[in-house]
Amino acid sequence: MTKSGVAAPLGFRASGVACGLKKNGGYDLAMVVSDITAQAAGIFTTNVVKGHSLMWSRNHIKNGTAKAVVINSGCANACVGPQGDMDAAEMASCAAGLAGCDPSQVMLGSTGVIGFRLDMDKVKRGIEEAFSTLSYEGGAMASKAIMTTDTFPKEASASFVLSGKTVCIGGMAKGSGMIHPNMATMISVLTTDAAISHKLLDKALRTVADSSFNRISVDGDTSVCDKVLLLANGMAGNAPIESEGPAYEAFCQALSEVSVSLSKMLAKDGEGATKLIEIRAEHCRNKNDAHLILNAVAKSPLVKTAIFGQDANWGRIFTAAGYSGANFDPNIVDIYLGDLLVCKNGVAFPFDEGLALEILKKEEITILLDFKAGESCDRIWTCDLSMDYVKINGSYRS
Amino acid sequence: MTKSGVAAPLGFRASGVACGLKKNGGYDLAMVVSDITAQAAGIFTTNVVKGHSLMWSRNHIKNGTAKAVVINSGCANACVGPQGDMDAAEMASCAAGLAGCDPSQVMLGSTGVIGFRLDMDKVKRGIEEAFSTLSYEGGAMASKAIMTTDTFPKEASASFVLSGKTVCIGGMAKGSGMIHPNMATMISVLTTDAAISHKLLDKALRTVADSSFNRISVDGDTSVCDKVLLLANGMAGNAPIESEGPAYEAFCQALSEVSVSLSKMLAKDGEGATKLIEIRAEHCRNKNDAHLILNAVAKSPLVKTAIFGQDANWGRIFTAAGYSGANFDPNIVDIYLGDLLVCKNGVAFPFDEGLALEILKKEEITILLDFKAGESCDRIWTCDLSMDYVKINGSYRS
Repeated sequence: MTKSGVAAPLGFRASGVACGLKKNGGYDLAMVVSDITAQAAGIFTTNVVKGHSLMWSRNHIKNGTAKAVVINSGCANACVGPQGDMDAAEMASCAAGLAGCDPSQVMLGSTGVIGFRLDMDKVKRGIEEAFSTLSYEGGAMASKAIMTTDTFPKEASASFVLSGKTVCIGGMAKGSGMIHPNMATMISVLTTDAAISHKLLDKALRTVADSSFNRISVDGDTSVCDKVLLLANGMAGNAPIESEGPAYEAFCQALSEVSVSLSKMLAKDGEGATKLIEIRAEHCRNKNDAHLILNAVAKSPLVKTAIFGQDANWGRIFTAAGYSGANFDPNIVDIYLGDLLVCKNGVAFPFDEGLALEILKKEEITILLDFKAGESCDRIWTCDLSMDYVKINGSYRS
Repeated sequence: MTKSGVAAPLGFRASGVACGLKKNGGYDLAMVVSDITAQAAGIFTTNVVKGHSLMWSRNHIKNGTAKAVVINSGCANACVGPQGDMDAAEMASCAAGLAGCDPSQVMLGSTGVIGFRLDMDKVKRGIEEAFSTLSYEGGAMASKAIMTTDTFPKEASASFVLSGKTVCIGGMAKGSGMIHPNMATMISVLTTDAAISHKLLDKALRTVADSSFNRISVDGDTSVCDKVLLLANGMAGNAPIESEGPAYEAFCQALSEVSVSLSKMLAKDGEGATKLIEIRAEHCRNKNDAHLILNAVAKSPLVKTAIFGQDANWGRIFTAAGYSGANFDPNIVDIYLGDLLVCKNGVAFPFDEGLALEILKKEEITILLDFKAGESCDRIWTCDLSMDYVKINGSYRS
């Protein structure tokens, strides 16, 4: 075992255990503990309906610090009434007792089916076991324990040098219901040994999330358990980042590298997905138009099934852009599949179907729309829609 | 053969022929002709990208009258450049010559794949054959010829008495890509022998469409060929409806009956669908909230796959409402599957899984959300999402 993911930065231990919440006996409880109290920032779902574990974290992260993170899979701890809040408090209290911190410094996450109570006996035994198996090489185990329908664990890390010290950022993520940004049910935990002020940590997380996690899971279009947490324990010993400038930029760049990498893994692991699709909207009139267009194309089941079927049906891409709510002149739009021009100035462009098939056969496909109207460019990641998606989601609860 | 659908009202003849646009040799060109010039109203897609045949109709319906309607399936006549406009003009001109009217009085529709030119030789031969086979019993044939991936033709009609005369409203519709309101690619032609002013005809169509066709196919969320046309030739001989009042109300009610009936058929015939789902949002704060909630729930692939899998996963319904953008208090929301309460005041309500399965096994399922916050109620129709949807749409173009 090597240091990886959330345990890649200095002073973070992690673990993952099977405590019986998942019927199949899989790993279902992850713990991350920092050796010392860390600065903490978080981004939480904008869904009106919010899970109880999520609410705990959302309320307590306001203090700005955290020492431990506990996440269970197999049960969302959502929509079970006041008992759900009490269960969250008990979870935090149990972990806090072991980690030697205040319960308010334990961040929680629960993911799985909505409307069922957590089995607290199992959860508490799980936390005890997770705590006793914490390790500086435990990142991989933790990333396994937060999976629901994910087909592979998701970890990433990046390092850079700051005032002569190597600074590391690591992270893990779960999420797989990615047919459509809104059902990400994604959770990500990011850790870093950088010394950075709480204000800049928070700002960096929001800025970076907007062009990574929010380019697969969109504002106002989120599940009841979505969250991204970022803990910084300062153990790298760099000169603290306390103002914007080259050091802050370097931090943001590394954070972005980790976040984009995890985001693309989330999109690629879409339930039943066979392909990762990157959609680019170029030269839009403004950022909002680009955003609307990318979301409409990425959400369109007709586009996603066409890509699954390796069918160069660009009319569906153009149609989705057309109903996105963005304003553009359809008569100057070019559309590319990979680097193959298929629509020029809004009109079918004769292309080699064999070449199109070669492009669509690949596991990673880029769709580019050029609106030739302004300077705004943006991109989003999604996946195709396969029969397996339906199979997986037709009987999730049972 | 009997009078039905678009040919149910007095003075409307219809036909449907196979002119070779569909590779499988199916019926692909429909014609409807009124014996005398009719008042005409229409509603067209709000998509930025618009088909050439649709643009022809949209431009010429402004004159307020029409005598004939020609609709082909198998090719959308969209995104092929100026040639597409010329082809539409030629189509109208050909039909006008036969029907004895100005080309501007011929309304056109084309539906099928985007980006391919119409084969005008086939279209012209088709129009000639369709004209020569027009019949007062031809409604059923016409409804067959406008089908694309529809699995059954869609016709409806209703009658009522006005100033001692029987007035009839008939109609047909096509559309099947109904997994999500935005891809309806729906076309509907409605006819009536009522005598009614153009102004009220237009108003009635807009009012009724808003609670029927727009409850399956949503504003700003439309394909490039969507349209609803309504022709009124006045041959019933009723005292013309020229102001709002009981006669106008009776007209609207019958128009609504036909439109809702067609709309439900469209939803039920969703590609690969096994179930018709009616979603009701009750006691919302306002109309807009109800609209947002219904759209989010109806679009959610997770809700649709759960219904396909007969899984009472109400958490997905609640989640979709939560991210819809509507503002509501999740702690007072009740959710019903059929008449079974599954969530009370935002919390899981113990229900009999056997009873839930009985409800979910049915072909028509009602989902009701009660927000207990105001007076606004609304409903939408959609269908479930099955593996066949993916199969159908993974290779549509080929």
